[in-house]
Amino acid sequence: MSRSSHQPQRSPVAAPRKRTADVRAALVDAAWWVLEHDGLAGLTVRAVATRAGVAPMGVYNHLRDKNGLLTAVLTRGFDEFSAALAEPADLEPVARLLATGRAYRAFALAHPVAYGLMFGGGGSTADLDPDPEHPHPDTIALSEAGERAFGRLVSVIAHAQAAGVVRADPLEQIAWTVWSAVHGAVSLELAGSLPPTDTAPSYEAVLEMILRGIAPG
Amino acid sequence: MSRSSHQPQRSPVAAPRKRTADVRAALVDAAWWVLEHDGLAGLTVRAVATRAGVAPMGVYNHLRDKNGLLTAVLTRGFDEFSAALAEPADLEPVARLLATGRAYRAFALAHPVAYGLMFGGGGSTADLDPDPEHPHPDTIALSEAGERAFGRLVSVIAHAQAAGVVRADPLEQIAWTVWSAVHGAVSLELAGSLPPTDTAPSYEAVLEMILRGIAPG
Repeated sequence: MSRSSHQPQRSPVAAPRKRTADVRAALVDAAWWVLEHDGLAGLTVRAVATRAGVAPMGVYNHLRDKNGLLTAVLTRGFDEFSAALAEPADLEPVARLLATGRAYRAFALAHPVAYGLMFGGGGSTADLDPDPEHPHPDTIALSEAGERAFGRLVSVIAHAQAAGVVRADPLEQIAWTVWSAVHGAVSLELAGSLPPTDTAPSYEAVLEMILRGIAPG
Repeated sequence: MSRSSHQPQRSPVAAPRKRTADVRAALVDAAWWVLEHDGLAGLTVRAVATRAGVAPMGVYNHLRDKNGLLTAVLTRGFDEFSAALAEPADLEPVARLLATGRAYRAFALAHPVAYGLMFGGGGSTADLDPDPEHPHPDTIALSEAGERAFGRLVSVIAHAQAAGVVRADPLEQIAWTVWSAVHGAVSLELAGSLPPTDTAPSYEAVLEMILRGIAPG
């Protein structure tokens, strides 16, 4: 009846560590599901525990509290966002820029609640940490996930710049201007500030304005 | 001691009407002040009544409820925004575009709570109305104030287009792309997504990107 009798090849030290990671991953899956279906107000320790089929104490043990839940779920959001922005590398630089721009909008429309939380303010991620001077590993992971997502945007612009189709301004500055424009367009669309039938062509017009705006002088 | 003895030239019908408008204006002033100082959570009938020095029933009588308060205060926000975007007409078209873009950011930074509510979603203004099929006059006034503010942006672009310094694309489409970019830039700044020291030059880079993006082909 001992654990080692059922799993003779496994180290008795490694086995519980793996199960801990599995439980945490299941909790983050559950939290992501709850956020998408019930919004931020629905994202409670109890709801996540119920969805994951664990006791509430399991959520406290793995993800602390509501802020810890939110930290983990936003990290998941940035990871999904990075994956969504990973376009095939065999596209021409301008086509790749356009594809990334379209993927940006598609992610925001598919995950409006998460998108709003990831970029919509409520201050910095440090607000989610009980001790921002000595950030929790989960807070650091969230910052890094956000930087990886921004890095996708920087990378596709760098590629186009290297190919000579984007002006030679500082890369971070170009990325910020591009990000401003796509973020503004999807934010206004999510806020319902444009007639719904016009949003796809209007977004294309934004992308074309960006391409002209960052083209070599 | 009668009213007419103090105001012999005034119609006894017009006098109370004027006082009603004065009370309403004082309540909207109070609501705007409360929103700026205490945020949306602080915008309660009681807080506005206290600030305006009237009984809570006075707020109910003039502005209905919290949604009515918010409707009135957002209308005030759009009116302030329109005034902020009214640049001297004697500027050159490109200088006028830049001045309007800078005024846009200055308003958002000066009134971050109102700006977030005016453009940050929470759905359409119809959500504030108890019967959106038959909108309240205050709801109609809010929509019209929002359209006037957007009209300022359209007007300054139309002026530049007439002068030949903006491409001949449909005016509304250009206005939407410009609005997307400036809204995105100030939203990311308000959300703390950029190092504070970099925000002013970064915003100038956004404006320059826009000018190139909407220049004649």
